[in-house]
Amino acid sequence: ENINIDHLRHLRAGKPEAVLAEFKTKEEVVEIAKNAIEENRPILFTRLNEEQMVELDKLSLNINRKARTARYLKLHENTGKVAIFSAGSSDACVAEEAKETAEFLGLQVLKFYDVGVAGIHRLIEPLEILSEEDVDSIIVVAGMEGALPSVIAGVVDLPVIAVPTSVGYGTNLGGITTLFSMLQSCSSGVTVVNIDNGFGAAVFAYLISRRIRKKP
Amino acid sequence: ENINIDHLRHLRAGKPEAVLAEFKTKEEVVEIAKNAIEENRPILFTRLNEEQMVELDKLSLNINRKARTARYLKLHENTGKVAIFSAGSSDACVAEEAKETAEFLGLQVLKFYDVGVAGIHRLIEPLEILSEEDVDSIIVVAGMEGALPSVIAGVVDLPVIAVPTSVGYGTNLGGITTLFSMLQSCSSGVTVVNIDNGFGAAVFAYLISRRIRKKP
Amino acid sequence: ENINIDHLRHLRAGKPEAVLAEFKTKEEVVEIAKNAIEENRPILFTRLNEEQMVELDKLSLNINRKARTARYLKLHENTGKVAIFSAGSSDACVAEEAKETAEFLGLQVLKFYDVGVAGIHRLIEPLEILSEEDVDSIIVVAGMEGALPSVIAGVVDLPVIAVPTSVGYGTNLGGITTLFSMLQSCSSGVTVVNIDNGFGAAVFAYLISRRIRKKP
Amino acid sequence: ENINIDHLRHLRAGKPEAVLAEFKTKEEVVEIAKNAIEENRPILFTRLNEEQMVELDKLSLNINRKARTARYLKLHENTGKVAIFSAGSSDACVAEEAKETAEFLGLQVLKFYDVGVAGIHRLIEPLEILSEEDVDSIIVVAGMEGALPSVIAGVVDLPVIAVPTSVGYGTNLGGITTLFSMLQSCSSGVTVVNIDNGFGAAVFAYLISRRIRKKP
Amino acid sequence: ENINIDHLRHLRAGKPEAVLAEFKTKEEVVEIAKNAIEENRPILFTRLNEEQMVELDKLSLNINRKARTARYLKLHENTGKVAIFSAGSSDACVAEEAKETAEFLGLQVLKFYDVGVAGIHRLIEPLEILSEEDVDSIIVVAGMEGALPSVIAGVVDLPVIAVPTSVGYGTNLGGITTLFSMLQSCSSGVTVVNIDNGFGAAVFAYLISRRIRKKP
Amino acid sequence: ENINIDHLRHLRAGKPEAVLAEFKTKEEVVEIAKNAIEENRPILFTRLNEEQMVELDKLSLNINRKARTARYLKLHENTGKVAIFSAGSSDACVAEEAKETAEFLGLQVLKFYDVGVAGIHRLIEPLEILSEEDVDSIIVVAGMEGALPSVIAGVVDLPVIAVPTSVGYGTNLGGITTLFSMLQSCSSGVTVVNIDNGFGAAVFAYLISRRIRKKP
Amino acid sequence: ENINIDHLRHLRAGKPEAVLAEFKTKEEVVEIAKNAIEENRPILFTRLNEEQMVELDKLSLNINRKARTARYLKLHENTGKVAIFSAGSSDACVAEEAKETAEFLGLQVLKFYDVGVAGIHRLIEPLEILSEEDVDSIIVVAGMEGALPSVIAGVVDLPVIAVPTSVGYGTNLGGITTLFSMLQSCSSGVTVVNIDNGFGAAVFAYLISRRIRKKP
Amino acid sequence: ENINIDHLRHLRAGKPEAVLAEFKTKEEVVEIAKNAIEENRPILFTRLNEEQMVELDKLSLNINRKARTARYLKLHENTGKVAIFSAGSSDACVAEEAKETAEFLGLQVLKFYDVGVAGIHRLIEPLEILSEEDVDSIIVVAGMEGALPSVIAGVVDLPVIAVPTSVGYGTNLGGITTLFSMLQSCSSGVTVVNIDNGFGAAVFAYLISRRIRKKP
Ligand SMILES: Nc1ncnc2c1ncn2[C@@H]1O[C@H](COP(=O)(O)O)[C@@H](O)[C@H]1O
Ligand SMILES: Nc1ncnc2c1ncn2[C@@H]1O[C@H](COP(=O)(O)O)[C@@H](O)[C@H]1O
Ligand SMILES: Nc1ncnc2c1ncn2[C@@H]1O[C@H](COP(=O)(O)O)[C@@H](O)[C@H]1O
Ligand SMILES: Nc1ncnc2c1ncn2[C@@H]1O[C@H](COP(=O)(O)O)[C@@H](O)[C@H]1O
Ligand SMILES: [Mg+2]
Ligand SMILES: [Mg+2]
Ligand SMILES: [Mg+2]
Ligand SMILES: [Mg+2]
Ligand SMILES: [Mg+2]
Ligand SMILES: [Mg+2]
Ligand SMILES: [Mg+2]
Ligand SMILES: [Mg+2]
Repeated sequence: ENINIDHLRHLRAGKPEAVLAEFKTKEEVVEIAKNAIEENRPILFTRLNEEQMVELDKLSLNINRKARTARYLKLHENTGKVAIFSAGSSDACVAEEAKETAEFLGLQVLKFYDVGVAGIHRLIEPLEILSEEDVDSIIVVAGMEGALPSVIAGVVDLPVIAVPTSVGYGTNLGGITTLFSMLQSCSSGVTVVNIDNGFGAAVFAYLISRRIRKKP
Repeated sequence: ENINIDHLRHLRAGKPEAVLAEFKTKEEVVEIAKNAIEENRPILFTRLNEEQMVELDKLSLNINRKARTARYLKLHENTGKVAIFSAGSSDACVAEEAKETAEFLGLQVLKFYDVGVAGIHRLIEPLEILSEEDVDSIIVVAGMEGALPSVIAGVVDLPVIAVPTSVGYGTNLGGITTLFSMLQSCSSGVTVVNIDNGFGAAVFAYLISRRIRKKP
Repeated sequence: ENINIDHLRHLRAGKPEAVLAEFKTKEEVVEIAKNAIEENRPILFTRLNEEQMVELDKLSLNINRKARTARYLKLHENTGKVAIFSAGSSDACVAEEAKETAEFLGLQVLKFYDVGVAGIHRLIEPLEILSEEDVDSIIVVAGMEGALPSVIAGVVDLPVIAVPTSVGYGTNLGGITTLFSMLQSCSSGVTVVNIDNGFGAAVFAYLISRRIRKKP
Repeated sequence: ENINIDHLRHLRAGKPEAVLAEFKTKEEVVEIAKNAIEENRPILFTRLNEEQMVELDKLSLNINRKARTARYLKLHENTGKVAIFSAGSSDACVAEEAKETAEFLGLQVLKFYDVGVAGIHRLIEPLEILSEEDVDSIIVVAGMEGALPSVIAGVVDLPVIAVPTSVGYGTNLGGITTLFSMLQSCSSGVTVVNIDNGFGAAVFAYLISRRIRKKP
Repeated sequence: ENINIDHLRHLRAGKPEAVLAEFKTKEEVVEIAKNAIEENRPILFTRLNEEQMVELDKLSLNINRKARTARYLKLHENTGKVAIFSAGSSDACVAEEAKETAEFLGLQVLKFYDVGVAGIHRLIEPLEILSEEDVDSIIVVAGMEGALPSVIAGVVDLPVIAVPTSVGYGTNLGGITTLFSMLQSCSSGVTVVNIDNGFGAAVFAYLISRRIRKKP
Repeated sequence: ENINIDHLRHLRAGKPEAVLAEFKTKEEVVEIAKNAIEENRPILFTRLNEEQMVELDKLSLNINRKARTARYLKLHENTGKVAIFSAGSSDACVAEEAKETAEFLGLQVLKFYDVGVAGIHRLIEPLEILSEEDVDSIIVVAGMEGALPSVIAGVVDLPVIAVPTSVGYGTNLGGITTLFSMLQSCSSGVTVVNIDNGFGAAVFAYLISRRIRKKP
Repeated sequence: ENINIDHLRHLRAGKPEAVLAEFKTKEEVVEIAKNAIEENRPILFTRLNEEQMVELDKLSLNINRKARTARYLKLHENTGKVAIFSAGSSDACVAEEAKETAEFLGLQVLKFYDVGVAGIHRLIEPLEILSEEDVDSIIVVAGMEGALPSVIAGVVDLPVIAVPTSVGYGTNLGGITTLFSMLQSCSSGVTVVNIDNGFGAAVFAYLISRRIRKKP
Repeated sequence: ENINIDHLRHLRAGKPEAVLAEFKTKEEVVEIAKNAIEENRPILFTRLNEEQMVELDKLSLNINRKARTARYLKLHENTGKVAIFSAGSSDACVAEEAKETAEFLGLQVLKFYDVGVAGIHRLIEPLEILSEEDVDSIIVVAGMEGALPSVIAGVVDLPVIAVPTSVGYGTNLGGITTLFSMLQSCSSGVTVVNIDNGFGAAVFAYLISRRIRKKP
């Protein structure tokens, strides 16, 4: 009838301490970074704005402008391999956020960008490469009609994590249409994270790889 | 500064006088049918319920139970050719409504049913057949994630008319998700009609073929 | 059981390689333009912002500020004829995007702007002109209550492609109301593209004209 | 600093005591009717179901099955004149509810049914008749794209009260699309009541006529 | 079978030629104003931005900064009387737009501002004044929960035109909640115009007064 | 670093063990009731359907058909006093669910039903009675435009718990409009529970009264 | 049949006269403040922008930048005690608005910030402290999935007032998701105020405490 | 430049051929079952209605009435282990669908039902059991506020697959609120499938386990 939190602590280990910079001031972000550096603690910042990136750059963190991330050290090493597909060139920032997070968590990343279904022949080469690589899971980042995860899950037998993006206009509804469209595909081995949440997809991919590695 | 309606009448010719039976009583439907038969006027009924179909069957109209349609004669003959694709077996009723309407309007129909993108290899044979046939336009009926029109329009250079269906559950929202998803694909040569509106898609396909045939 | 992409290639030919500039930087846009010029390849840019237009102007592309487009050469010549109607003066930008795209694809364009249904008598003259011209399809751009395509499709027997615009306020919902309203009219020979998608409407109109011209 | 309700009572006079039967049992409805008859008090029932109408019929109230109303006596006599337009044959029940309410309130009713904009020439005759009649206001009942009030308000200078109906499918959203569409037209002299609310439109029309008659 | 537009013209007379400045450039607005002045034609501008107002001020039009309107002359004189209620101090701009439009159309305006239902005692005095004035209709402008029209229509027997405003936050949804809430009150003699549409409400009020005045 | 659940148990005391019958079978409900009777444990059933009520009646539980509840014994006695207002006669079932729950929890209930704002004079007498009674909180049940809580909170200084109901049509959206409308009034001392949730409102009212009684 | 407003006045006492600065100009805000100071009247400003705060600072009002509030004096003293929980660090501004309002109304405030359910162990210490303090009600401010009020109400027997915040992205919908999620928890003793409405939650908490204190 | 489908076939292997019975007739379902039995092919039916289950029972398939599934044989054996949590007793059917699918795919299933966050102490025992079992992933089925996946993912380091259910009322919106709420938690290692999609969650869990087992 007691919870001993310690009993659960080993379960919690391994999740990244990431800082969602969007709702923080420049000063708060800098202070968090300095503390981490001082204590030599790996840290990842996401959703940074231009101004925040300029400051973190001075502290010589590893900045990815496209991804709007900064990281200091890595949290883990050699934890597995993940493939990241993106549909359009405009989805690249979310894909890059996933990539940065995955690498921070020790995953090796295979990138296949700009392979959307409008020209389905572009998918063939990536899929052949994929079939020869030893990846644990696939992240698929797509906006618009969001058909890419469905198509990929139709030809591979790996877990596919779909990330809808808010890129689009008209009936896109800030990504809700893409999200809903992707959720229609769940029966074929697809799960979905929140709109633009490249970070969350990578954490999930890491948890799969971690489980594989830890399997007794 | 005057409209002479006669000037416009030749423009209006050719559109079907169809009866949307959904909001009509059994008695109203039967009466409309009897009048048409008496005057030997071609007529098409859509969205009939079971009871209405039983009555129209007695008048020996041509019933299609899957499509929930009945027709008496044809409005036109040899007006062109259209291909109708459907994604899932559950989209068949809407596809059949399109087929019945198209035939009533004198179009020849090529059917490719149950070729949804979850197993994209199923699309290959139909597309090869298609490339050897002389069709004027393509109707694509799909529910769920609605990716099929987008994929097809990516490989053909014909007008693609997409029909979202209300088949699905959860985030499907009675077809709105499929509709919105399809509208995201419009740049590649796709237009969309209302949810479950196989009738409207066929009328539009007919107008394209009619224009081709009438071209001076 | 093989796809030979070459078998499908002739199907794909003819669609424009257009650049949606909205999610691209000024630098990316300029580079794409320079490459096209160097290789003497026709190209069309849409949804340019002011800054991007200034740069493309220097490269002496053909800029249309209202349409927010730029084009270099034409992709095709003499492919057919399309009429473009717009309802209000505020819908003009979307109508112009359609016009630029249509001309890039070799279509001749008849413009009837600012003829919305609030004053239905304004429609009469355009419809009389129309009935004497040899157009293949009609693009109707409208915001607000979106009634124009429905009214036009009621008096002509050509395919009508409706483009809802996001102009309006209150219950307009960024064009969704107009879109939904237009979809209600699909039975009379109307299909719809995404909100503000003048480009997509013109590509579709081109595919109709192309089919007419290619008809064996 | 006091309200003397009596001071306001003369303002309130004249509004009908109507019974919305939808959320009441058969027994409740019958009892209300019996009381009214006993006291010789005029009464109007709306949104009756079949069962309730059968009972009220026995009490020899004036039943209108299409309108789903029943009335006993009239509340007023000779209060003015109203025109009621309806777009499709399926909008007739709502139009009839408006008619019954209007007559209960002493208005004379001109009916112009099934004159929707899909065939705009059907509007001409009604409008010419209208221009020769001395009506105080116009009620326009329409479903689907809801363009009719907008078109009528464009050619007359009377107050137009629009009633959206829930008839339609797909993107109709139970009438919300029609409602929103109609609200886009408000600038030209149109106001709107709730979906399917023929009753409310007639009460409002009555208030206009009442004001006209009472004008000192 | 002909429309003679002239037959309808006398019906159309009297509606204001108003300019919705929101989607127009400063230059366009100035030009329209200059033309009107030159031809001594009454004109009303609505939804002006700061910059546009500065320009029109130079042309010595009658500017109302709160209402964001400008007018030149009046279209009519002595057409009737309207009362305008507003609920909160923040609804004042929409109420002022209604007032300016009403005056442009020759209506005399009684203003009762900031009398929202949160403190219902504030309503008493205005209602007593109202009962002694000879007004033709009532415009009620309200945001938030939108209860004011319902309360007023409960105690007066005049047509009440409700204008929902977009003032509020959280579940206000840009005025949609207020709009829907108001539509629930339609049975008691209320009709509604689009969100923030003070202009439309005043045009409608004018049409009522015009009808009263013209009554044979 | 341990939770000892016992430390928290005294905090949890007092909340009712209520059975939401809606998603349970007749058999499950009967069994739960029999167990409670056997152990002489007070129990409350809500959202019962007709069939379930018939069965519980046989076990001689206390049935309230309007409220669709059944109770066995009371959980508490003399815990305080609550006033329950309802706007329309159709909101009575939700009001009765609140009443039954409140009484089960030992609250004395003052009922003021059918006092909606459309006729605001009906509110005066209840408010005067209220001002002489010693109530701890007020529950206000309302559908449609939901203005009643706002009006009441404007004249009393007690906590007002608003319950939106799903009664209404058209833009009512199953109660969402009423809910949103009520949330706009929160600044004046109103909080809201879920649509039709009379049960939750009464539990909350009980917690207020319980706190008053327990106050050291 | 008369309302004597005086009869109701004693009921109304005690509610704060607060100024929602969001829709007011800098000048209006300063004038209201000066009047209050002159008359030595307590006053509270909420939702101030930076500019407005700078001006009020000069008048030496008590500014809380995080809360975006300013206050002059207190309206009441020693009225009771309230606990305020917040889930994430980004919800702090809304929590601070609640705190400022509560203190203005004489409540003592216990703060437990940044204790969201993602790490449920963080909740244990606050709950133990709470169980030893004599608080009258609990305000819980949370964004995202909004689970915190539900979890807290599961272990305490005090009224819980939930405040959804608009913090989040993707499917957060400006706080609507959090709001709806919280409304699902109402059965266990939770009520909800509008999104970001810390002010309203504190007024309600004050009304509970006031009732406790006034209890005869 | 060729796809050789055979190259991809080994990738596709292992996904279940499941039959979504919802949109099929009784006859179609029986025929599919008979074919499978004849060819000794494993098969799984989901979303069966009562009538369909009666027929399949006669063919001695393995029926689970709660889950509304039927299966014949298993597709795989000993593929791994999954834990299934459910929040309320009403979510059981979806949890059972997941269980049946998982077992059909050879997974061993640990069930922890009815452990929702309203009484968080109910979670402790399951979590302690879990920490001693060798599970590959966790499926969490929940309706209402959907907080359970978030709470669980906060204390374990395994992939958590969340399944929102459509159980609830009022603001539940058929499960959309729960879905959106769950998507807010994605950063902590949660992904989501469509509403009520127990089947899809189990397929995904199987793909994770399969990858673990196949890991070279
Ligand atoms: N890009 C991102 N998208 C979603 N969540 C994130 C992202 N980056 C960090 N987070 C999460 O946001 C939380 C930080 O919230 P806070 O306590 O406000 O700093 C952590 O739990 C992170 O796991
Ligand atoms: N299946 C259908 N879907 C949509 N519209 C249809 C369908 N069948 C007929 N219609 C149209 O519905 C209208 C008939 O409406 P009504 O006047 O109510 O009979 C005609 O204009 C038809 O073109
Ligand atoms: N009318 C009602 N509305 C909302 N919740 C209720 C109602 N009646 C009972 N409940 C709650 O529903 C839960 C019962 O859920 P279950 O475990 O499925 O029986 C309990 O926590 C009750 O407090
Ligand atoms: N932060 C706030 N959120 C919601 N309502 C507020 C807030 N601050 C003040 N109010 C209310 O807003 C009203 C002021 O509106 P106004 O008459 O426009 O100044 C008063 O009734 C206040 O109780
Ligand atoms: Mg691309
Ligand atoms: Mg299939
Ligand atoms: Mg115009
Ligand atoms: Mg008709
Ligand atoms: Mg005020
Ligand atoms: Mg009543
Ligand atoms: Mg935090
Ligand atoms: Mg339970």
